[in-house]
Parts: sequence; C-alpha cells; structure tokens
Amino acid sequence: MSKTSEKADSFMSKPILELYSFGEQHFEKHLIQDLEELKPFLERKDLKFWLNISSIQDEDLILKISELLSIHPLVIEDITNTSQRPKIEEFDDHIFVLVKMLYSKNSISEIQTEQISILFGQNYILSFQETPQDIFDNIRVRLENPKGKMRKLGSDYFTYVLVDAIIDEYFGIQELISDTVEKYDDQILQNKSNVNLNTIHHHRKTLRKIRNNIWPMRELISLWRKSEHPLIKRKNLTYINDIYEHTIEILEGLELQRETMSSLAELYMTQLSIKQNEVMKTLTVISTIFIPLTFIAGIYGMNFQVMPELEWKYSYPVLWVIFILITLFMIRYFKRKKWF
Amino acid sequence: MSKTSEKADSFMSKPILELYSFGEQHFEKHLIQDLEELKPFLERKDLKFWLNISSIQDEDLILKISELLSIHPLVIEDITNTSQRPKIEEFDDHIFVLVKMLYSKNSISEIQTEQISILFGQNYILSFQETPQDIFDNIRVRLENPKGKMRKLGSDYFTYVLVDAIIDEYFGIQELISDTVEKYDDQILQNKSNVNLNTIHHHRKTLRKIRNNIWPMRELISLWRKSEHPLIKRKNLTYINDIYEHTIEILEGLELQRETMSSLAELYMTQLSIKQNEVMKTLTVISTIFIPLTFIAGIYGMNFQVMPELEWKYSYPVLWVIFILITLFMIRYFKRKKWF
Amino acid sequence: MSKTSEKADSFMSKPILELYSFGEQHFEKHLIQDLEELKPFLERKDLKFWLNISSIQDEDLILKISELLSIHPLVIEDITNTSQRPKIEEFDDHIFVLVKMLYSKNSISEIQTEQISILFGQNYILSFQETPQDIFDNIRVRLENPKGKMRKLGSDYFTYVLVDAIIDEYFGIQELISDTVEKYDDQILQNKSNVNLNTIHHHRKTLRKIRNNIWPMRELISLWRKSEHPLIKRKNLTYINDIYEHTIEILEGLELQRETMSSLAELYMTQLSIKQNEVMKTLTVISTIFIPLTFIAGIYGMNFQVMPELEWKYSYPVLWVIFILITLFMIRYFKRKKWF
Amino acid sequence: MSKTSEKADSFMSKPILELYSFGEQHFEKHLIQDLEELKPFLERKDLKFWLNISSIQDEDLILKISELLSIHPLVIEDITNTSQRPKIEEFDDHIFVLVKMLYSKNSISEIQTEQISILFGQNYILSFQETPQDIFDNIRVRLENPKGKMRKLGSDYFTYVLVDAIIDEYFGIQELISDTVEKYDDQILQNKSNVNLNTIHHHRKTLRKIRNNIWPMRELISLWRKSEHPLIKRKNLTYINDIYEHTIEILEGLELQRETMSSLAELYMTQLSIKQNEVMKTLTVISTIFIPLTFIAGIYGMNFQVMPELEWKYSYPVLWVIFILITLFMIRYFKRKKWF
Amino acid sequence: MSKTSEKADSFMSKPILELYSFGEQHFEKHLIQDLEELKPFLERKDLKFWLNISSIQDEDLILKISELLSIHPLVIEDITNTSQRPKIEEFDDHIFVLVKMLYSKNSISEIQTEQISILFGQNYILSFQETPQDIFDNIRVRLENPKGKMRKLGSDYFTYVLVDAIIDEYFGIQELISDTVEKYDDQILQNKSNVNLNTIHHHRKTLRKIRNNIWPMRELISLWRKSEHPLIKRKNLTYINDIYEHTIEILEGLELQRETMSSLAELYMTQLSIKQNEVMKTLTVISTIFIPLTFIAGIYGMNFQVMPELEWKYSYPVLWVIFILITLFMIRYFKRKKWF
Repeated sequence: MSKTSEKADSFMSKPILELYSFGEQHFEKHLIQDLEELKPFLERKDLKFWLNISSIQDEDLILKISELLSIHPLVIEDITNTSQRPKIEEFDDHIFVLVKMLYSKNSISEIQTEQISILFGQNYILSFQETPQDIFDNIRVRLENPKGKMRKLGSDYFTYVLVDAIIDEYFGIQELISDTVEKYDDQILQNKSNVNLNTIHHHRKTLRKIRNNIWPMRELISLWRKSEHPLIKRKNLTYINDIYEHTIEILEGLELQRETMSSLAELYMTQLSIKQNEVMKTLTVISTIFIPLTFIAGIYGMNFQVMPELEWKYSYPVLWVIFILITLFMIRYFKRKKWF
Repeated sequence: MSKTSEKADSFMSKPILELYSFGEQHFEKHLIQDLEELKPFLERKDLKFWLNISSIQDEDLILKISELLSIHPLVIEDITNTSQRPKIEEFDDHIFVLVKMLYSKNSISEIQTEQISILFGQNYILSFQETPQDIFDNIRVRLENPKGKMRKLGSDYFTYVLVDAIIDEYFGIQELISDTVEKYDDQILQNKSNVNLNTIHHHRKTLRKIRNNIWPMRELISLWRKSEHPLIKRKNLTYINDIYEHTIEILEGLELQRETMSSLAELYMTQLSIKQNEVMKTLTVISTIFIPLTFIAGIYGMNFQVMPELEWKYSYPVLWVIFILITLFMIRYFKRKKWF
Repeated sequence: MSKTSEKADSFMSKPILELYSFGEQHFEKHLIQDLEELKPFLERKDLKFWLNISSIQDEDLILKISELLSIHPLVIEDITNTSQRPKIEEFDDHIFVLVKMLYSKNSISEIQTEQISILFGQNYILSFQETPQDIFDNIRVRLENPKGKMRKLGSDYFTYVLVDAIIDEYFGIQELISDTVEKYDDQILQNKSNVNLNTIHHHRKTLRKIRNNIWPMRELISLWRKSEHPLIKRKNLTYINDIYEHTIEILEGLELQRETMSSLAELYMTQLSIKQNEVMKTLTVISTIFIPLTFIAGIYGMNFQVMPELEWKYSYPVLWVIFILITLFMIRYFKRKKWF
Repeated sequence: MSKTSEKADSFMSKPILELYSFGEQHFEKHLIQDLEELKPFLERKDLKFWLNISSIQDEDLILKISELLSIHPLVIEDITNTSQRPKIEEFDDHIFVLVKMLYSKNSISEIQTEQISILFGQNYILSFQETPQDIFDNIRVRLENPKGKMRKLGSDYFTYVLVDAIIDEYFGIQELISDTVEKYDDQILQNKSNVNLNTIHHHRKTLRKIRNNIWPMRELISLWRKSEHPLIKRKNLTYINDIYEHTIEILEGLELQRETMSSLAELYMTQLSIKQNEVMKTLTVISTIFIPLTFIAGIYGMNFQVMPELEWKYSYPVLWVIFILITLFMIRYFKRKKWF
Repeated sequence: MSKTSEKADSFMSKPILELYSFGEQHFEKHLIQDLEELKPFLERKDLKFWLNISSIQDEDLILKISELLSIHPLVIEDITNTSQRPKIEEFDDHIFVLVKMLYSKNSISEIQTEQISILFGQNYILSFQETPQDIFDNIRVRLENPKGKMRKLGSDYFTYVLVDAIIDEYFGIQELISDTVEKYDDQILQNKSNVNLNTIHHHRKTLRKIRNNIWPMRELISLWRKSEHPLIKRKNLTYINDIYEHTIEILEGLELQRETMSSLAELYMTQLSIKQNEVMKTLTVISTIFIPLTFIAGIYGMNFQVMPELEWKYSYPVLWVIFILITLFMIRYFKRKKWF
C-alpha cells in the first residue's frame, strides 16, 4: 500500500506508448503520442500489433484506450488498482491476464512487486506496466526476427511469451531466497552466535508474501488450459503447460525454503536448550562440589570454646583428605551421570 | 450470542422501510408505513423496486412481507436468527442471499458482526439490516444517477452491488488487523518487554472468528457462479468473479496475518529462551569463579591450632596470586565456550 | 465400549412401542404390545405411521420388525450395534438413516452419546432409540396439529424433522463447550495458578470424540442431497440444506474451540517461561551481587598471621565503601540489561 | 523387510491347499495334493470352489496355479512379494484383491502384518495366506450351512466375507492400541515418574505403520464400489458399504489415538516445565534468603583489628533481629509473587 | 544448480549412441556414429528401435535428432535443462516422459539426482541420460530374449520397463534413508550424547528434496493412465498401475521416515528437558541443604565479643545435632516432592 502511494508521490512521468506492428513479412515500431494514431492499426486485420504502456498513472489515457477497445470497466479497475491477485478473465473478443512481476536488485529485503496487465484480442496485444521496466527488452529483439514464432503464432502465444518472461524473473528471486536460507543454514549449523533472528522472521514474512503473489498463477494457468475461448488455440497448449511447470517448480522451491526455515528455527531452539543444559551442568558441578566443602570449612571457622577437633594435631591434614575424597566422589558421580 | 441479546435489550425502534422504485427512466423514493403500500409496486412489472428494512426486531412485519412475497419459512428463520453462516439459496421466483457485514470504529477488539439478508426476484430487491447502518448510503446516490448500470441491469446486478459494498468494508477490517499485527511485530522485534501476550491471544481469537464469518462467502459465490437460475444472468458473471477475487484476497490477507502472528509467538518464545540463557550464563560465570575462591578463603578462616600455612610469612600474597590465577583460568575457559 | 456393556448390565426394560398413525385429516396414537397390531397400518396406503421404539435391547422384537418390513440384515446389525458412524443407506423401498444424539446434564465431562436409527418407507417412519429419551416430545406435539407440515409432507420431511431435533441438541453441547473453554481462557489470561491442565487435556479428548460423532453427518447430508431415490423429494431439499448449514456451523464452532484450546495451551507454556525467566533473574541478581561480597568478607576472615590490611585502621570502613560500590555497579549493570 | 527374510529362514513347510467345492445343494472339502486335481472343479460351471493356500513360499506351485487360471505375471509378483500396499485390480475374467491382516497376541509391540491375496472369478475364489493362520476358521463353518448366503450369492460376496473377517481383526488391534494409550494417559495425568517415553515413541511409530497398512483400504473399497466389472454385482453393494464404514471407523479411531498421543506428549512437556519452575523457585527462595544473611555473618567473621560493632554489647542480638527481619521481608516478597 | 555446472566442468565425453533394433524375430545392436545411420531404422515400420544417448552435453547432436523426429523445441529445452520436474507430454506422433533417477553409493548425503528423458513413437524409443550410467544394463539383457514381452508389446510397454527400472532404484534409496533414520532412532532412544543434530537437520533437507523429485511422478502416472493417445494401449494399463503403486509406496515410506524424524526431534527435546530437570534438582537439593547450614556455621564464626553460645560447653555437639536434623528434614521434604 505504502509502496503504491510512494510511487504516486514520485514524478509522474508521461507514459510511453510503444507500438509494434507486425505480420509474417512486416515489422514496424511507433511511439504513439495520440491515441487517434492507434485506430488504423486496429482496423488492419492482416497485421497484429503490440502496444506497451509503461505506466498506469494516466487514468485519462487508460479510459480512452478502454473506449477504443470496449474494455469492461472492472478490467480498467483491475489495471489501475495494483493490489490485485493474478487472474485471467475472458470476454467476447479479448482476454485479460493480470500477473505479478517480482524483482530485486540485491537482497531479499528489497524485493519489489509490480503488476503487469495484458489484454489480447484477435490482432492486438496490450500490456500495462506499473513503472517503466526493461523486462520486455528481450522480447522486442525476438520480435524483430522475421522467422521468429512470435510473428507467426497467434496473440495467445504472444501473451505466453510475455508471461514467460515474467516467470523467468521469479527464478532469480528464488535463487536469492535460496542463497539467503543457505546463509542462515550455515550460520546456525556452525552454531554461530551472531544469527539475527529478527531478519529470519522478516524473511519468512517476505517468503509468505511472495508465495501469495505466485500461488494464484496456478489457477490462472489452469483456467487458461481449460479455456475454450476462440482466441486460445489448442496447438499452443504445450507452451502453457511449460509455464505451468515453471510456476509449480517455483512454488515447490519456495515451499522447500519455507520448510527449511521452519526446520532451522527448530534446530536453533534445540541448540539453545543444549547450550543451556551445558551451562546448567557447569554451575551444578561447581556448586555441588564446593558448597559442601565450604560448609565444612565454615564449621571449623566457628569460634566455640569447646571444639575438640581444633586442638587435635592431625585435624588439618585429615580434613584435606576428606575434601579430596568428597571431590573425587562427586566427580565420579557426575561422570557416571555423563555430566562431563 | 451475548451481543444479540444485548441488542434486544436496547431500544426497539420501529424499523424504517425505505422503498426505491426505479426503471431506466424512473426514480422514486418512499418511506413505507403500511405494507399495503407495497402491493402496487409488486404488480408493476416495468419498474423494479428496492426495499431496505433497517431492523429485524419486528417479527410481525417480516411475517407480513413473507406472505406478500411467499417466502419460505426457513428463509424467515434465517433472516431473524443472526447466527447464520453466509449462504445463497435458490427458490422458484426469488433468490436468497445472506452475508455478514463486519465493521469497527477504532480497534480490533471492537469489531462487530452484522447479518445482512438480501432477497431478490424479477422486479424487486429486499434487504434486511440487523441495525440501521449507513453502509448502503453510497448505493442510494448511485441509484439516483439515471445513466447508472443499477437502473439498467437486472436485480442480480443490484444484489452484486449490495454485496460488493459489504465486502469493501472487509478491506477496512483487514487493514485494522494488519496494523495491529504490525504493531506487535515491531514490539517483539525490538525486544520490548511490554508486549501484552493476552491481547495477542485475544486478537488471534478475533482473527479466527472473522475468518469463520468470511470463509463461507467462497462457497456462496461459487454457487452463484454455477447457478443456472433464470434470475442470474450470464453477462453479469464478470461482477461475481470480481467479488470472488476480493473475498479470496481478504482471506489470503487474513491467513497471512494469522501466520505472522504464529511466527511472532514462536519468535517471542525463542527470545525468551535466549534471554534465559544469558541470565543463566551470568549466574554460572559469577558462581563458578567465586564459589571455589570463597571455599579457599574459608579454609584459611578455620581455627585449627596446627595449620602451617597460617604462620608462613608469604601465605597471604601467594594466596592472592592463586586467586587471580584461578579467576584468569576460569575467564579463559568461559571465553572459549563463548559464554561472554 | 464400556458404556455399552454398562447399559446392558442395567435393568433391561421392555421397550415401549409408540405408534402414531396420521394422515392430513387423521391422527391416532397406539401403544403396540404385539407386532401383529402393526400389520393393518402397514397395509393402509392412505395413512402414514410413525413407530418409535424406545430401546434396542430386545433383539427378538427387532428381528420381527425386520421381517415385517424386509429390512436388510446389515441394517439390523447397525441398529443394534451402538458403535456405528452416522450414515445413510438407500434400499429399494426404504431408506435407513443413522445419527448420533449428544446430550449432557451439566458439564462437558458428562456428555453422553446415543445412537438413533431411523428407517422410512412410503408410508411409515421407524425410529429406534438406545434408551427412552424425551428428545422427540416436541415432535409429538407438532404432529397433533392437523395443519402442521408433518401431516402433509412425505416421510422424508418427517425424517428431516427428527434429525433436526437431534441436531438442535448439538447446539446445547456446543454452548457447554464454549462456556468451558471461556472459563479456562479467563483463568489462563488472568494468570491464575489453579488451572487444571489435566482437565483441559481431558476436555480436548472429549472435543475430538464429539467432532468424530458429528463429522460424518456432513457426508450423510451430502448423500441425501444428491440422492435420486423416489422417497426423497426435490421440494424438501431446502430443509436438508438447512440441517447441512447447522451441521457445518456446529463443526466450525467446535473447530474454533479446538483452536482456542491449542492457543491457550501455547499461551500457558509461554507464561510458564516468562515466570521461570523472572525467577531465574531474581536468583541471578541476588547471587551475582552477594557471592563476590561474601568472598571478600571471607578473605578478611582468614587467620594468616601476616595480613597487613587487618591492622590498618581504616580497613573496615573502606571495605564497606567497596561493598557498596560493587553493589551499585552490579545494580546498574542489571538495570541496563533490563533484568529489573 | 527383516521380518520377511526371517520367515524365509524358518522351516519352509509344504503349503496346505484346502479346496471347498460348493453350490446351493452341494458342499465338499478336499485337500489338494496335485494341481491336476483342480481341473475338474474349474470346468464345473454349476459349482463354485474356494481354494485356500496357506503359504506363498512354494513359487513353483503358485506359477502352476497362475498358468491354470491365466493370472497376470504382475499379480503373481504381488502375491509373492509381501511388501505390497492393499489394492484391487480388475482383469477380464477375474478380480484380484490384496489386503493386509493385522494380528497380535498380547501387546502393541508384537503386532504382526500378514498379506492376504484373494483372486476371484465366476466360479472360484483363491486365497493366499503368508503363513497358515486360523483367521478363516469361522468362514469354513458358515460355508457348511446349506442355507447360508455364502452358498447362494456370487464370488464377490464370498470375497466380501473374507475381507470382512480380516477387517474384524483390526478392531482387536484398535482396542489394544486404545488400551495402551489409555494406560499412558493415566500415568501422565497422575504425574507418575515412571512414564517410559521411549515406549511411547515406539508406539507412535507402530501406529503410523498400522495406519499405512489400513489407509489404502479406503481407495480399494472405493474402486470396488465404483467398479462396473460383471463379477461385481450391484445388489451386493450394501456389503461393500459396510466394510467401507468399518475401515473409516478404524482409521478415525487410529487418528483419535494419534491425536491423544500428541496431546499427551505436549501435556508431559508442560508438566516438566511446571516441575522445573517449582524446583527453580525452591532454589531461588532458599538462595535469596540465605545468601545475603551469610554475607552479613561473613562480615562479622572478619578479623580486622578495628571493627567497632564487634565490641558493642548488643551487636549479636541486634544482628539476629536483622536476620529475622530480612527473612520476613523476603518471605513476604515471595508470597506476593506467588512463589510459595 | 552447482551440481550441474560441476558436471559441465568435468570432461565432456562424446556421447555414446547405442541403437537396439528389434522385432519379434529380430535383434540387432549398433553403435551410431553419424545420425544419418538412423534414417533407415526410422523408415522400417515392421521393426522398432531403442536409441539410448548417454549424455546431453552435445547440444548439436540433440538438435539434429530433434529435426529428424520433429520434436517440439520445448521438449529439447526440457531434455537439456536438468532442473525439470518429472512430467509427461503428449504430441501428435510421440509422447515425451521425463523422470528423475536417484542413486547413491553409500550414504544419504551422497544421493545424486539424474534426469532421464524418454521419447517414444510408434516404432522407436529414445532415452537421454545425463551421464553414462549402467541403470539400463538389465534391460539390454531382457531385450535379447526373443520371447520377452519387450519384443512383442508396444513402445509404451518399453517405456514402462525403463521407468520401472528407475523406480526400482528408489527402493534402494528408501532403504538407505530408513537405515539412517533407524540409526538415529537407536542413538536417541539410548540417550546417547553423540547425536549429531546438524546431520539430522541435513538429512531432513535431503528427504524433502527427494520427495520433491518423486512427488510429481504421481501426477505423471495419473495422466498416463487417463491418456487416450493412440500410442498408449489399454491392455498395458496393468503395468502402469504397478509403477503407480510403487511410487505411492515409496512416497508413503518417505512420509513415514519424515514423521519418525519429527517425532525423534520432539523426543530429543523432551529428553533434554528431563535431563535439565535432573540437573536442576541436583543443584537445588545440594544448595538448599548446605546454604542454610553454611549460614549457621557463619554465625558462629563471627567475632563478636558477646556471644553467649560460644562459651557454652555443649554448643558444638548441639549444633551438629541441629545440622543433622535440618538435613534429615530437607531430605524428607525432597523425597516427598519426588526429587530423588
């Protein structure tokens, strides 16, 4: 929530509208300034176009687009409200796909979520980014290749390529998490004392949030697979299966990390108990040996006038013998109890 | 339970019956005094009307309404008994929807539940509130707009709008919970000592009760989506999907808070163990160093007549050396064990 | 198990066979002595009858009934064996429903389970009680009402009314449990020392047993709803939905209590740890302050002939200053560690 | 695994082949020596036969049988390999059912598992036992009864009777477990110190293994119920439902025991914590009272030449007053903290 | 990940391409050097062939094969990327099966995962190994047998045999895990102090990873069973059921080990608590007895000039009586509290 508002506070750049018009023999790139420019592309049924909008701040623009393509008002709401769950929604002449992108520069604590909305019809693909990101750069390159499948296969394949690019980013996130867990694993296994429990707690929270962002992808893809919408072609199903497998793989990986973290927390508690046991044993051994001895020494420090032992010549050496015998007996007792 | 009875004790106001008669070109508001006034509206098939009843105390009134609209006796029972689970029930010429509203002024501990029953037929929508609440104010405004969809689309859409208004309230509750959890999170992470465990326990109970109130919404909406009742139009399905997504989002959010609370409780226990370990180490270090020294001092406090060391000139300084050596040895031992 | 045998040991009263013959215009009550009296009722297709058998001890009687109505031997076994799970079983011309009644006089520990078997055909309803109980009293009254639905609707509706009466009893049990949990909740939250853990453990066991008795009701009702048996009428489905909702409500309530008990047990453990921490801190603070002081006092209690400090005039007051300084330093140290 | 090999080491008795040939009017018993004797029975379509083979050691014999009845090689493998999961497999003219028998002489730790394979066709039932057991004795008696259903109903009913006999044994096992859990329950509730945790751990393992042996029965019976194989008659479905109910009942019973054991383990841990708290309090109270007193006594045991208090006449009684005051203050402090 | 790269670093051997051409009356073995040699085999529809490729390093080779057999690019990706989940994918004229092989020389910590990809069409089976392994040796032998089913049944049966060989390896792994868990079980039950918690933690992680590799096999086989692809013959379904049972058996075994490990960890914690309790009791008993005695001795070590007891003749023996009485009283107190 705070993230979103923060973004809103930042400089509200005019969104960039990149349009790529393409066919099997055709490829063109335009920077759209006015939405009127879009109309001729919409009417040309022999070519497809991809329009990438780099920001969702300009509600006016989005409303205009929605009128042009007769987009459902709830879809507009979904596009502009960045707290949506990933989902797929079918309409008569287009399909709406909403997914979450995850990215991070360096560490687990800086993981950012960004909502990507994709809308595809017979001859167009629209993608809305929350902020201008370079995630689709690679796709632009592939599109320029006249022999590439993106030029030939339908707009559902094009959408698959976009979603696949987003899912590929998840693997980086997963590796980041995996490395972090591995680090704590090492620290705890080596019984290091500088383990920061708070950070672990924080990372577990992050893990849960990431899972919540990826989990609905399963249902999304599942619906996609079962869809009988004319825009979704049977022959492209293999590609959808592919991103399904990737999503499951990532979720299983996250689950594995989660279980490892739980298991680490448990191990840490056990280590604490073992350490405490050791501390207690030390205290008990020392106390149990010396407290009785001190008592005996205390007895002969009393100032009674009549204390026969005090006068006996061998009292002192005999007492030392008693001290040593008691100590030896105690040590043997503790040894048998395996407290050493 | 106690809540309900409490309400019953309170002043039993005469329920307010607001009737809104509307069509694409028509909008009228009435305050119904006598149910006889309702009949003409029931017979006009070209107009729809919405009747909002602000209280369910007046059983007589509800019985009369049920006769007018031939409502099933079990539905009457559901409307008047406020401990029902959310549900949808289909009848020949109307559909009954029962949902739970949650609202709170300030804090998690003041969250109130209120049951809202909605009954819609071809040309009417009836809504029953437990107590007069202003939750539908915004809807009244939207209804006055002659171009609004509420005037055009069917009574199932109208019901969607009512349910949507109720679900929107859940988000406020969720934010309240989220803030509270965040507060405890901070307190525990900063190792503050004033964490009130009892309040946390109480909040976990509240969380479970809220979840129990929202959870059945999933099944309700799922049945709605699959319904083949003529009153439920295919084309309005997108709206139902929308509240389904919202419900899932809220349930996932609650689950996240629940997990965070569990994880916090675990962290708190671990912190307690760490603190206890530290306390124990302090005790052990001090005891282990000074108990043997005290014993030695005790020996030379004994009053035996024959104790050669007592007479030796350098006994006292030598003993100090021994004291210091023992202490240094102990400190080194503890340092190696990382007890410092 | 032991319960059953206990009952068998008790006085084996002759079972009471109450027969209620009824039609829309007809109501008669008989006490059947000889099963031969039953035959005319069986043959009258224009009237229905309800036969309530108040005991299942008389196997002879049950065998005779089973012959009269050609009941499956496994059903006879189910009726007489009181350790069955709730279930519904369909046969060609009758349906067998087995449910569990729960009742308790005062406390959770006295909850009793009783098996109620119901068998209904086109024009008869048979109910078998384990012991004579007054649970169906209210139904007898309703049956006498000539306008009541029980006289008009089919034998499946009659069975619904019987099952509904049994399920209504569950709510009482649930309230009993809820009160008990509330009591422990208060005791533990107020940190009272007289919390009886054994009773809590015992109640958790009871809760599990109750849940096991109610849980199969879900499947039973689910089968009932999906049944296409001619004896089960579509139009009575609303009533079945009603008891389904009640069952789910009770199961959710039990689950809530179970979770609260778990959460209480956890809270109790945490409270124990907090208390132990406090005890440990007290011990450590006192020991850590006085053990070193005692050592110093011990030193100057030694009897060496050469100890310069002993002769120095200001030794004693200086030592007091040292004592006080050490104590102040320790207190400051513990204060910084927040052990006070 | 080790169990199996152990058996193999033991004396490999020649398997006993009991053949019971029966029809509605016919009953004969043979001890088969040579498999050739089996052929005439196979050909007589008016009679059925049950062949019980008391051992699976003689692979030669089993291969010959499999040839005679054209059994699938994988079935032969299943029969001879005793680590299979319970299952049902349908073939063109016979059905293969594999179940696990559990039996124990006295205690939970001696529970034995034995695999029973049953193969039934139109006019034959084959049963393979791992070792000669008397589990089917009762069935032999029922078979001799010319009016019994086993003589009339099909081979699927016969198989039901065999499986039912095996499941009935489970109830004995369950009672054994229930008694054992009850014993530990008593021991722990009464806070006895001789609770053997290792045995409890061992029993939990046994419980898990038993559950794993019974759990697949659910799927087996579920497949049986849904089967459309001509050998499985609709009218015998009631019997299958019966063993399904029994299996579920046993699994629920095991689950209850498992939960009780978990809850007991938790209770035991809490009791340990309570005891430790009590021990700690005793230590702390004694130490906190006497350590400061000992320090004061130590002070006046010092041998400084200038210690004014030593010469004062009332020092000693005043000190006693101080001792008593400190003790009273401490006791009051601990009382207020509820450490007594 | 690291594992894969490690392998890549190692010597990149030229992959071995073993081709086995076979029919009911025919068997030939070739070592393919050039893929051109493959073409005649592809065209002979009366014979089948199995091509085993011992390495996936040579991407060039795999691309050529894919062209020859028109394999989908995503399949090529799956074959060469060794971090895939087990899966089955159907294409028009071939089916792709990807499974994970697990093997280990000696210990749980050396368990290796290897990806095996199998592609089968009407008359060919292709298998890709990550590294040259001898896992299929036994299959080569069976293939030489002219009466073997592998020569007669379809390529789906051949694939079953390959997958079965891989699953058989799982049993070895499972036994390895079972032995390891058994070892820890013994160590902990015998309360040995050298239990290595870190290794247990590590093994739990390994267990989870193994489970993740085997778990998707269930879905794979489930899809295989439900498949209606012409290459998959109904009559071979029994074999698929067989590997399904094996997979479930292994997963249940792993789950059992996992539960045992959890239970062991819990037992270990309880043992630690018991030990700590014992240590605490020892300390408390010794301290509680001797601290008050030492205090008394300290009193009579004070040097007050006026202490009447000091001069009394019987003070010393009387004090000894007091010492003994206090000790006896304490011992009795502790005995009653069962601290001995």
